[in-house]
Amino acid sequence: VKIDAVDFFYLAMPQITTEADGSQDALVVRVIAGAHVGWGECEASPLTSIAAFVCPMSHGVCRPVAASVLGQKLEDVADIARIAALVERGSMDLLQAPHTWSGIEIALWDLLGKARGEPVWRLLGFSSTGKKTPYASILFGHDPHETLTRVRQVRADGFTAVKVGWGPIGLGSPGEDADHFHAAREGLGPEGQLLVDMGQVWQEDVAAATARLPGLESAGVLWVEEPFYANALGAYAEFASGSAKVRIAGGEGAHNALMAQNLIDFGRVGFIQIDCGRIGGIGPAKRVADYAAAKSITYVNHTFTSHLALSASLQPYAGLIDHRICEYPAAPKALARDLTTNHLVRNRDGEIEVPNAPGLGIEVSSEALRRYLVDVEISVAGNLIFKFPVDWKTNQKMT
Amino acid sequence: VKIDAVDFFYLAMPQITTEADGSQDALVVRVIAGAHVGWGECEASPLTSIAAFVCPMSHGVCRPVAASVLGQKLEDVADIARIAALVERGSMDLLQAPHTWSGIEIALWDLLGKARGEPVWRLLGFSSTGKKTPYASILFGHDPHETLTRVRQVRADGFTAVKVGWGPIGLGSPGEDADHFHAAREGLGPEGQLLVDMGQVWQEDVAAATARLPGLESAGVLWVEEPFYANALGAYAEFASGSAKVRIAGGEGAHNALMAQNLIDFGRVGFIQIDCGRIGGIGPAKRVADYAAAKSITYVNHTFTSHLALSASLQPYAGLIDHRICEYPAAPKALARDLTTNHLVRNRDGEIEVPNAPGLGIEVSSEALRRYLVDVEISVAGNLIFKFPVDWKTNQKMT
Repeated sequence: VKIDAVDFFYLAMPQITTEADGSQDALVVRVIAGAHVGWGECEASPLTSIAAFVCPMSHGVCRPVAASVLGQKLEDVADIARIAALVERGSMDLLQAPHTWSGIEIALWDLLGKARGEPVWRLLGFSSTGKKTPYASILFGHDPHETLTRVRQVRADGFTAVKVGWGPIGLGSPGEDADHFHAAREGLGPEGQLLVDMGQVWQEDVAAATARLPGLESAGVLWVEEPFYANALGAYAEFASGSAKVRIAGGEGAHNALMAQNLIDFGRVGFIQIDCGRIGGIGPAKRVADYAAAKSITYVNHTFTSHLALSASLQPYAGLIDHRICEYPAAPKALARDLTTNHLVRNRDGEIEVPNAPGLGIEVSSEALRRYLVDVEISVAGNLIFKFPVDWKTNQKMT
Repeated sequence: VKIDAVDFFYLAMPQITTEADGSQDALVVRVIAGAHVGWGECEASPLTSIAAFVCPMSHGVCRPVAASVLGQKLEDVADIARIAALVERGSMDLLQAPHTWSGIEIALWDLLGKARGEPVWRLLGFSSTGKKTPYASILFGHDPHETLTRVRQVRADGFTAVKVGWGPIGLGSPGEDADHFHAAREGLGPEGQLLVDMGQVWQEDVAAATARLPGLESAGVLWVEEPFYANALGAYAEFASGSAKVRIAGGEGAHNALMAQNLIDFGRVGFIQIDCGRIGGIGPAKRVADYAAAKSITYVNHTFTSHLALSASLQPYAGLIDHRICEYPAAPKALARDLTTNHLVRNRDGEIEVPNAPGLGIEVSSEALRRYLVDVEISVAGNLIFKFPVDWKTNQKMT
């Protein structure tokens, strides 16, 4: 079969706020190839990612993503890597391309899996899967008391691992930050896994990060995430060399596998966090997972949106039993919850299992696609080059 | 003054081909602040870069570039870095943002320079400038004879340095590649500086690159450029450690200063090539130039388009006398030539001088802006969020 159509559903909550919550909008991708359909999701700016798919060619290595995808043969797993290489070459100078391609690539795996009646993790070469321990991602409160309350709530919801991030952290004094870390530990209890996300707040300032180490250590924090800019490899390495107990996590900003490998090799992270909706999809994420395993670094998914994205993000390390912790969107906006009709719910032990159903094992809700849809029209030189949905009454694609 | 308006002129040749020639279209940026006007240019996909400026916010760190720029105070050089930091933070998850911001940032330097009657290089802290030796960038021919003819032509045009790249190179055997290298050397003569651009053709394959070293060495090639993917730091370092004479050049893919520094520190390049239209503008390019100088690495501009882009690209190392070679768009498309009414022409010695006129010292042709303009309209949720030009008859902005 050939790739006949790639459709982008730009979905959004009625109101978008400035909080660091990536579940407020979504770019869902549907790929149609012959009789088969697959679904994926970009973790990216929807309009900009659509533009990267349809933009006019600038030159031979600045082509729209569509040019490397539409009409391509899709018959087995190797075709996905082959098309990925076409995109990498043809859109070398189109910076947004990896974010656009990520959602398409995920949809291709879903499509192939469904066509063969196999879960994606099996197509990736795993023969079985391991259970994952989900951590809930929440934001620091305005003060330590609010942080305590929030973490306590998550603990009451049954999570034994929690990541707290953003908000005021890193902006006040080391003592104020330590109060937040200890409040989080108090809310979680002495046993739970406590993770902290700095959201790049210190940019390249290793001294600022190091000043927080005593607070992080005494609160028993397992990892401190993105203390610096995504590409500040030197700062990562310097901080890592000065931290005996607390390990560094990073990688969500990687838009290809090599950037993640650089964080492992040169940034000396202890946990490599990959967002399949940004790195180019499931294939490059699997490459990073294998690389991490070979280097004794722990692979972790980065997922803040829907359970379609969550299932995709678990596939690349579904069979890596020792890489147990996983990010779980504990309190997403209604859009992310409503997007799928089924969900990866925690079992009695509070753990997550990767679906055994064909493809990603997740059903997209056509009702949610309708309810949250944002229509987009783009014209260049007087020609309408993108319009979705085409026509509410006659559009066969919407069914 | 405040930044009152940022306008994007999407310009294109009537026909865009698949050749690796980035001068086939352009995204020119005009910034208006009070009574002052500045001009810049993005080296990027025009439509996608416009989308990154106007897209709806996705969340707190995935905001459109416009949100961090419009209305900002612009009174001195420090304001440019301050706004850059706002963009970096506010658009952390918007991958295209650095390409969009690059053209704006260049325009801000041009505007400030004109407002103060100073060339940009002086605002950057240089007290004088050095002459640069331009190299002409051309493509390999289909066969060594065509390569010879092309290089001979460039030599006859007075260039003593030439870079040959892309086309069939790296795809055939090492012997076939060596024939091209020697043809280029023959065309240039024994004295000239010969540079080779591999256009990432070997991806991560160090052995493939190493197999070409004898041919590169015997042809006296000064640098081999982008043998691998932009982020393949490990491959860069491995190849560098095995090459005694030929040095590696890279960096055009860097979309922030840290990526370029990583190429120096971990990739061990000998020449760091920066495109101001991609890395975030002149400020981060200057940071890389200073970093390179401190590490005894040679800084080089990457410029394939207009003389507006060329002037911008020379500013960050205008005063670094020892960093002498510069890329010079020798045979751009008519659009790139017509875009400016003045040009940086070679002096009698075949050298280039950085302009002493205020700002970038380059005048944009309003006639070219009209002639090559591609109009763009973007609507989201039924609202027109971008339309340029607004109205050919009444639009004051077009004058």
